[in-house]
Amino acid sequence: MAQRKLKNLAGVVHGVEDFRVEEIPIPKPQDHEVLLEMDCVGICGSDVHYITHGGFGDYQLKEPLVLGHESSGVVVDVGRNVKTLKVGDRVAIEPAIGCRTCRHCKAGRYNLCPEGAYCATTSHGNLCNYYTHAADCCFKLPPNVSMEEGALLEPLAVAVHCCRRAGVRLGNTVLVLGAGPIGLVTMMVAKAMGAARICVIDLMESKLELAKSLGADATLAVSGHDAQEEIVKRIHVLLGDAPDISIECTGAEACVQLGIAATVAGGVLTLVGIGAIHQRIPLTTALVREIDIRTAFRYANCYPAALAMVANGTIDARKLITHHYELKDSVQAFKTSRYGLDGAIKVMIHCQPINKNNPQQKI
Amino acid sequence: MAQRKLKNLAGVVHGVEDFRVEEIPIPKPQDHEVLLEMDCVGICGSDVHYITHGGFGDYQLKEPLVLGHESSGVVVDVGRNVKTLKVGDRVAIEPAIGCRTCRHCKAGRYNLCPEGAYCATTSHGNLCNYYTHAADCCFKLPPNVSMEEGALLEPLAVAVHCCRRAGVRLGNTVLVLGAGPIGLVTMMVAKAMGAARICVIDLMESKLELAKSLGADATLAVSGHDAQEEIVKRIHVLLGDAPDISIECTGAEACVQLGIAATVAGGVLTLVGIGAIHQRIPLTTALVREIDIRTAFRYANCYPAALAMVANGTIDARKLITHHYELKDSVQAFKTSRYGLDGAIKVMIHCQPINKNNPQQKI
Amino acid sequence: MAQRKLKNLAGVVHGVEDFRVEEIPIPKPQDHEVLLEMDCVGICGSDVHYITHGGFGDYQLKEPLVLGHESSGVVVDVGRNVKTLKVGDRVAIEPAIGCRTCRHCKAGRYNLCPEGAYCATTSHGNLCNYYTHAADCCFKLPPNVSMEEGALLEPLAVAVHCCRRAGVRLGNTVLVLGAGPIGLVTMMVAKAMGAARICVIDLMESKLELAKSLGADATLAVSGHDAQEEIVKRIHVLLGDAPDISIECTGAEACVQLGIAATVAGGVLTLVGIGAIHQRIPLTTALVREIDIRTAFRYANCYPAALAMVANGTIDARKLITHHYELKDSVQAFKTSRYGLDGAIKVMIHCQPINKNNPQQKI
Amino acid sequence: MAQRKLKNLAGVVHGVEDFRVEEIPIPKPQDHEVLLEMDCVGICGSDVHYITHGGFGDYQLKEPLVLGHESSGVVVDVGRNVKTLKVGDRVAIEPAIGCRTCRHCKAGRYNLCPEGAYCATTSHGNLCNYYTHAADCCFKLPPNVSMEEGALLEPLAVAVHCCRRAGVRLGNTVLVLGAGPIGLVTMMVAKAMGAARICVIDLMESKLELAKSLGADATLAVSGHDAQEEIVKRIHVLLGDAPDISIECTGAEACVQLGIAATVAGGVLTLVGIGAIHQRIPLTTALVREIDIRTAFRYANCYPAALAMVANGTIDARKLITHHYELKDSVQAFKTSRYGLDGAIKVMIHCQPINKNNPQQKI
Repeated sequence: MAQRKLKNLAGVVHGVEDFRVEEIPIPKPQDHEVLLEMDCVGICGSDVHYITHGGFGDYQLKEPLVLGHESSGVVVDVGRNVKTLKVGDRVAIEPAIGCRTCRHCKAGRYNLCPEGAYCATTSHGNLCNYYTHAADCCFKLPPNVSMEEGALLEPLAVAVHCCRRAGVRLGNTVLVLGAGPIGLVTMMVAKAMGAARICVIDLMESKLELAKSLGADATLAVSGHDAQEEIVKRIHVLLGDAPDISIECTGAEACVQLGIAATVAGGVLTLVGIGAIHQRIPLTTALVREIDIRTAFRYANCYPAALAMVANGTIDARKLITHHYELKDSVQAFKTSRYGLDGAIKVMIHCQPINKNNPQQKI
Repeated sequence: MAQRKLKNLAGVVHGVEDFRVEEIPIPKPQDHEVLLEMDCVGICGSDVHYITHGGFGDYQLKEPLVLGHESSGVVVDVGRNVKTLKVGDRVAIEPAIGCRTCRHCKAGRYNLCPEGAYCATTSHGNLCNYYTHAADCCFKLPPNVSMEEGALLEPLAVAVHCCRRAGVRLGNTVLVLGAGPIGLVTMMVAKAMGAARICVIDLMESKLELAKSLGADATLAVSGHDAQEEIVKRIHVLLGDAPDISIECTGAEACVQLGIAATVAGGVLTLVGIGAIHQRIPLTTALVREIDIRTAFRYANCYPAALAMVANGTIDARKLITHHYELKDSVQAFKTSRYGLDGAIKVMIHCQPINKNNPQQKI
Repeated sequence: MAQRKLKNLAGVVHGVEDFRVEEIPIPKPQDHEVLLEMDCVGICGSDVHYITHGGFGDYQLKEPLVLGHESSGVVVDVGRNVKTLKVGDRVAIEPAIGCRTCRHCKAGRYNLCPEGAYCATTSHGNLCNYYTHAADCCFKLPPNVSMEEGALLEPLAVAVHCCRRAGVRLGNTVLVLGAGPIGLVTMMVAKAMGAARICVIDLMESKLELAKSLGADATLAVSGHDAQEEIVKRIHVLLGDAPDISIECTGAEACVQLGIAATVAGGVLTLVGIGAIHQRIPLTTALVREIDIRTAFRYANCYPAALAMVANGTIDARKLITHHYELKDSVQAFKTSRYGLDGAIKVMIHCQPINKNNPQQKI
Repeated sequence: MAQRKLKNLAGVVHGVEDFRVEEIPIPKPQDHEVLLEMDCVGICGSDVHYITHGGFGDYQLKEPLVLGHESSGVVVDVGRNVKTLKVGDRVAIEPAIGCRTCRHCKAGRYNLCPEGAYCATTSHGNLCNYYTHAADCCFKLPPNVSMEEGALLEPLAVAVHCCRRAGVRLGNTVLVLGAGPIGLVTMMVAKAMGAARICVIDLMESKLELAKSLGADATLAVSGHDAQEEIVKRIHVLLGDAPDISIECTGAEACVQLGIAATVAGGVLTLVGIGAIHQRIPLTTALVREIDIRTAFRYANCYPAALAMVANGTIDARKLITHHYELKDSVQAFKTSRYGLDGAIKVMIHCQPINKNNPQQKI
């Protein structure tokens, strides 16, 4: 077994506006688990929400919680039943572990498991030095995939799930509503699935610039004052026709409404952005044009595809990372992410020296 | 060619509250059409809407319109290219005819065709004595299917399409919201597709009684005062669990909300009832439980299945017919349907003496 | 905990033509398991194959093996993590338990798991008095489902899986090739899924009689001398047209060939009967008519639907049971099954007095 | 209307080894048709088959037939009902026109229409100067797509249909058997659909070189002497695992057998290459590993996707064209294609001066 650090530092939220880096015990892997020396952990909006609101949706903080669920690490110990991984393997960590016995898990939809564990939600996250995880939820990275990219597989898996649920097919035109991290990776994954033409819309020109540089065929900056009908027209011009598929990545009611108005008859609007519980929706418009409203929650069986597309160079998500911090500076990292300082899109926390575990140092 | 009547009486709407039975010309079939001597025509809510509101949705009356689109008739003449039908054939009439060349028609979703003809909407209906129709949209009835049943294939096709869109599968539990004609046929079709247990809810006990007699496993009478949470609990008890699939047949906002609240995680809510354009919907509830909201508009390629299930006795929709009128009494027939007089569910107008064209006189 | 018998008798195959009833130890349930007092065990062809050939396919006997995998029992002890079952519950036993961590298991196709356990194949079967099994693979029977029916859920699950893979839909015409136990339950399940008309073919009139009594719309007795072309014509006449779906339940090359010849263009031939490894198939005929050849191996996530359809009375498979034996008479039971004595279709072995565990004594 | 040539030269097959370029009448467009001045026509193996064998499969030459069905042209006249095209439009010609009224056409699978017309099979092809075609089967080319690329949409549509039928999804590993024109375009389309890694196998190294230059991740040259087991091992090494999907593009029995042996459990083998009618296939191997054998015949609704992917630069099929001939030299063009002279892959016949109709002269 590899030599280890003596301490396990972790980014722990204790309550609203109470987030600290502090020491926690080093865990031991169970029979089916591996012990990981963590490397990269990206900050997600849901992590930030614990600090600003003490939780999100049904998940409210009851006791101190280690944050972090967009992560990669290196195996430093294996449980005795683990056959698929060995010490030294570099892995991306899928944060969802189903109960494996409920109807959802057995049908392959473990993202719906009511008893499952999910890092930094129903169980501790992995923004720390040492962390144990089920071996089958760790995906070995090939040498040409960096630890940063391993951490980015998590938002990519969200995008893969979302585009699968949307049914993106070769030749489709796609409208992506919102150019935040999820909108951007969704655009990239839809492209990889064969979308012929993708238009991304957002309020901020700077995000749309990034969208363009990542492969968007067209972008449209909208403001709250634009009439929906006018926006729809512009989208249709930019795409050459009404989009076959629209993917809503903001949670905003106006965007859901726009998605229904813009999508072609017989098309699909897929919701991945979480917004207000109740929203006022033109349901009858959807019905008479037979537009489906599908939903995508987390992911199931999406890491392998996300990893494959990063490994073969189809998807390069590294441009999403705008900031790097060390684990000890996590408080500042969260500030940068929370307030979008310096144009922050994706803030990456490094639990190891950068490139220590990157054999090909792509970053 | 069969001997014909000399007159072509028709039920024509001229404007709001202006519906008359009057004479119109006898049409001639084009090369690909058949001339039909009409037999049965069921009254649908959309027909009534022309009289009460001068149209519905985007379809507003511009000139007098023959009503009727749930119909059956007998072939009395055939165009010269018609090979699939001959004089004397008893047929059900699918009222939708796509343009056959647009992307939707060529992909098999002719219900979405923007240029297509639809009886009593974009073209004249067939509440009359003589009517021409594309031969491939007429479905020959076997001897054991009555003309009344032929007319009922139209609402049954709506139900088939809706259940297909919902993805009803063997063993599913299903919640049907609304026990009007569409709710009832939807329940029957879902059963025929292998639904294990179906619960129908409605405001009116009398309709739920009919639902039970037609095969509903459970029914629940609700009132506007019941708390949603309480209704959901009762539904789950009646079905043994949360329904896999809910089908909304009323158009009411409260029912759409209830459908989302009641459906199992990963399930499907399908909308077929048309209601207010905008509705307030718990979208985030749907999203975090990954419930899809699908829509079903009319039907495409559903008549053959509907006919097959009536012909083999799986579905017996005749109990839906509560009233019979002659064509000349159409004004009274519409009153009965419009006001639900005498517990009217489905009102059938006969353009021919009852049983004249029923070799096995099932009715 | 319930009082138990002192002995655990089991039907054990030691080698070709060496099958004995002998005593084995009473096992203890692990944390996630239940201990079952076995009730009914149906004999399957694969059980017989161990006795006649020492195994089948890749599964060859290396050490003595308890036979039996079509079974039901009563819970008499539960492991400490078991929450879904309690002592006294009557259950059907799904004999397949995946590894829960491979790509197939996580995607919901645990029937493809290369590491999974399967009763009487990769692990001991349950033709015995006491048997332990994973709790999530035991399905609680409602009071109106008998222990015999619980055991029959296994072949029914095969049929459900097979019909799902075939994509049986409302209104389909279906050809079932072979009227053995699997052909018969497949016909019943296809009917429950909404098949409009089913034709069953076999060499033996007596089996076709049973098929008819179980619901087949048409049957056709064929002999090895009939020309394929002639048989196809007769099938098309019996079904009214070429079948949308053909399901091959015999494994015979001639039946696979017939299935391709008979099926409609764009249709599906599904193989569930296992025959010779290599077969001579008219592949180009399939290709130019775009007929898919699908395969169905065991089942995954099919017990709930099979149970639901038995519980609600849609499927009554009890007529398949032609013979009943006590556990101690298993040797004779296998002879009856092996040689088809007295018209044996399904032979049921009872480890308990008949009806002891049937509250409603349906049998 | 544009000025026209006075003559309509055509490549006509009169019988085995009797192919001539001769004059035929200039046709007039019907109401729903356009008259096209033909530009590019690629030679397909089925065209060659008419010359070598007098037909293929069920299609046998009864009277002289104009060959050619991989084509593009320019609209020079329009029928009076044509609204989607105008004189001067550059179009690719989809050679299949369904009857529009049979069950297959109405369900969107017009490739299965028994009454449909198909260029150079059931009706004349378009290797000529003037040709009429249904307007909805002509796809307008944007300025950046050349006439050569327009003609290549036909084999690309075959590939799109085949990959759709195969169900290629993001992250799949794919084995393509055969590196002829169809194997090559299939590989390109599978890549565009998100295949993570594709291995192409063939007997000829030169074809595999082309496969590599067109994007194959791995190639494997096999010979008739290699043991199947050994080839399978090498494929698994090259792909990192067993392929999720195999696509058979040769029609050879050994390749079908290899496809089944190589594909992962639960995977799909899709047949697009047409070979001997009967083939000896390891069906039971497919069954116990639940591998589906799907078939792909021609295409339906695939031209739009093929065109979109060429227009946006995802697919560049121009490297497939190895030879160019003028219409008057068609006899020599067919020789080159037939005997694979000079490494011929795709031979293109030009009915117009090269680049005359290419505004952006990509070629």
